Amino acid sequence: MADKKSNVYPVIIAGGSGSRLWPLSRELTPKQLIALVGEETLLQQTIDRSYLISKNTPLVVTNSRIHGQVDKTKLKEKVEFLLEPEPKNTAPAIALAVKWVNKKNPDGIVVILSADHHIDNKRFLPFMEEAVVSASTTEKIVLMGIKPSRPETGYGYIKMGGKINNSTYEIDRFAEKPEKKVAEEYLSSGNYLWNAGIFIAKAKVLKTEIESKLPDVAKVFNDDDIEKVFSNIVPVSIDQGLLEKTKNIAVVKTDADWNDLGSWGSVYDVSELDHDRNHIEGNATTENTSGCLLLERGNRRIATVGLKDIVVIDTEDVTLICDRNQTQDVKKIVEKVKAEPNNKECIEHKTMHRPWGRYTILDEGDGFKVKFIHVNPGGKLSLQSHSHRSEHWVVVKGAARITIGEELKDLKPNESIYVPVETKHRLENIGKTELTIVEVATGDYIEEDDIKRYDDIYARA
Amino acid sequence: MADKKSNVYPVIIAGGSGSRLWPLSRELTPKQLIALVGEETLLQQTIDRSYLISKNTPLVVTNSRIHGQVDKTKLKEKVEFLLEPEPKNTAPAIALAVKWVNKKNPDGIVVILSADHHIDNKRFLPFMEEAVVSASTTEKIVLMGIKPSRPETGYGYIKMGGKINNSTYEIDRFAEKPEKKVAEEYLSSGNYLWNAGIFIAKAKVLKTEIESKLPDVAKVFNDDDIEKVFSNIVPVSIDQGLLEKTKNIAVVKTDADWNDLGSWGSVYDVSELDHDRNHIEGNATTENTSGCLLLERGNRRIATVGLKDIVVIDTEDVTLICDRNQTQDVKKIVEKVKAEPNNKECIEHKTMHRPWGRYTILDEGDGFKVKFIHVNPGGKLSLQSHSHRSEHWVVVKGAARITIGEELKDLKPNESIYVPVETKHRLENIGKTELTIVEVATGDYIEEDDIKRYDDIYARA
Repeated sequence: MADKKSNVYPVIIAGGSGSRLWPLSRELTPKQLIALVGEETLLQQTIDRSYLISKNTPLVVTNSRIHGQVDKTKLKEKVEFLLEPEPKNTAPAIALAVKWVNKKNPDGIVVILSADHHIDNKRFLPFMEEAVVSASTTEKIVLMGIKPSRPETGYGYIKMGGKINNSTYEIDRFAEKPEKKVAEEYLSSGNYLWNAGIFIAKAKVLKTEIESKLPDVAKVFNDDDIEKVFSNIVPVSIDQGLLEKTKNIAVVKTDADWNDLGSWGSVYDVSELDHDRNHIEGNATTENTSGCLLLERGNRRIATVGLKDIVVIDTEDVTLICDRNQTQDVKKIVEKVKAEPNNKECIEHKTMHRPWGRYTILDEGDGFKVKFIHVNPGGKLSLQSHSHRSEHWVVVKGAARITIGEELKDLKPNESIYVPVETKHRLENIGKTELTIVEVATGDYIEEDDIKRYDDIYARA
Repeated sequence: MADKKSNVYPVIIAGGSGSRLWPLSRELTPKQLIALVGEETLLQQTIDRSYLISKNTPLVVTNSRIHGQVDKTKLKEKVEFLLEPEPKNTAPAIALAVKWVNKKNPDGIVVILSADHHIDNKRFLPFMEEAVVSASTTEKIVLMGIKPSRPETGYGYIKMGGKINNSTYEIDRFAEKPEKKVAEEYLSSGNYLWNAGIFIAKAKVLKTEIESKLPDVAKVFNDDDIEKVFSNIVPVSIDQGLLEKTKNIAVVKTDADWNDLGSWGSVYDVSELDHDRNHIEGNATTENTSGCLLLERGNRRIATVGLKDIVVIDTEDVTLICDRNQTQDVKKIVEKVKAEPNNKECIEHKTMHRPWGRYTILDEGDGFKVKFIHVNPGGKLSLQSHSHRSEHWVVVKGAARITIGEELKDLKPNESIYVPVETKHRLENIGKTELTIVEVATGDYIEEDDIKRYDDIYARA
């Protein structure tokens, strides 16, 4: 495939939330942004995968809320981001990507990858290469189908038609997530594959197909005011809107390990286990514990006694404890929490990422909030002011340059400064190491949306 | 008993740690200081009990480390504290109490209560009254014995001898915690009682008995340098050192509910249960959960799915998850954590009490620590200085008076002050409501023991 790689353009679809992996996933930190299997986030793993397929910089399509949470200092390779104006399911996001590839090379091959799957690359890639060849030499959209290993009721299925060549087949039909009995029939028939949500096609083929099946979505190709176009689109998935309707389609059958990580049970299934069949990460002390997934990500300790087949997910503000065979029901908990007046625990973590670094809420009360603010070397917050809160900053690590009104002040550890309400101010890391300050904000309203931005190197002003 | 109450002196023994109720109990916050059943601490419940027995102010014997953690603003009645110079088990602590009562009234009746038991007062008190009468009219030490309701292997037993009168019996012998089979024999024989660790006797009787059986301990009666006396005492329990050796002893048999709360399983047993047989306190969201004890005391949320007979104890820095029938093994976890280099989680909570209020460690890192400091109205920290750390204080609630060197400054919310290293300083609440400040300490050493005290209204200087 070496000679073909130059016209292959990987596209990573990174929208979606994933409440079934709560409390590690939150609305603003969906599962692609968390390290579920191994030390890298699923997004990074998908980027790694894209570089195995092509040397072209992958395009990540996401929305601005999620984009803000990507810690770009930790991305190992070059990535291009494309932001949806608003989430409208997968078809509009993919149309944006097709437009982007078309401009570069209308004969380019688009490889659509999901950012939230677990794949055994080694076994999967030869089949991907076959799909790329199929897509290059035909006018078809070529899907990746996984040979089922169990009667899974949580996935969509593809019924194979006649063989085209090698592992490539016609598609007879798509099938919704089946009942258990039906899933068992699918499994034993040998004619059904799991729909991995990965597909490959020429950019111009996808463009023509979108124009024919999804005219409202296709408006993104001719109108550069994509905000306006998006506002008129009814949300639609690429599966229902296009793939299930077109005849120009084929599937490559693979038996590689694939898992959509749709629940903590799935995460356990692909995790490395110790001799007690536990997978343990972080600060955990156990006694007579087996078959458990223990993830401690809250800078705390979990201790277990006598547990069997239990999942414990510990974060800064929430601990989930769940029977390993009932992890599909975590979404019921999320619905309950969401229905409460204070449902921040569904939306964001105590630690939030920003283009300049990150902050952690240590505590908050009536009229005040205490935060750690970590600024990356070279990071610079926007020039801003607040109408309702004053801020006290104490530098505990690194070198800070602070703008207060018209003044510039450089602060080192153990120095502090007061930022009065309504005063224009800015914080910058002028050192070579991370800058950490403790902020005590006080005022009658202390939420993040009380901010006026006057200037910003990340174009958020 | 109304006429006898004036010469009855309740003594509450409140030493001991209780690692089996970790992580809610810690070395510095043993179980008597936590609210395990109901909203009041076991100490407060014991104080309430003492006022049902006598109008005399109860004496609480404890040690200085634990005494410092008692939140005296929450004690509802008058209490007198007596501090052991060092923990030497129960006999020396009881000798101090006997000396204290003897000075008041040698004919006084001492009622020794444990601060860490759960008792159904209503059914128990009539039997206590019988025991007080027995102790008043004889020269005997009268124990409280509980009619066993199950073959418990975790308690010590008393074998009854002949009946003296009503529910009062001779004691044939004491028996150690038995094996299961032996416990079953005890139960079916009807001759054995659980030793509740509660006993009543004239002060002069106890003094004479201690002088005869425990001469080293008895030195406290004649020497006011109790630190010196204590330093020479080999730790000894009142049971082994005295009660099991004397013949001047009797037991009152009661069938009242009594539980030593020796494990989370015991706490569940005496807790009020909902229709799913759960006992839930704090911020918890559950789905298909039954037979569970869920205590959330960490200002966080716990969420459970599909749990059966599980105990979850959530604190600011540790979450314990334990099979309800294996809670005896929590001590194995504590041993493991204790063996680690950083074992603070065994010793103290993130929130610690002081005579002037309390503080909570929000976070700490290399060279800095962030705390909330809450000062009670009228509370005043010692005049102090630190050799290794500077402190930044921001007032977020209440009215502070701050001494810095020779200066006095009054601060209100949103005002801050800097306390340089080596500078004498003091913090005082001059308002009528709680004062809350955020402290950011920075320095090369930031532990609590870097403190020089020059003056203290609580006599700690």
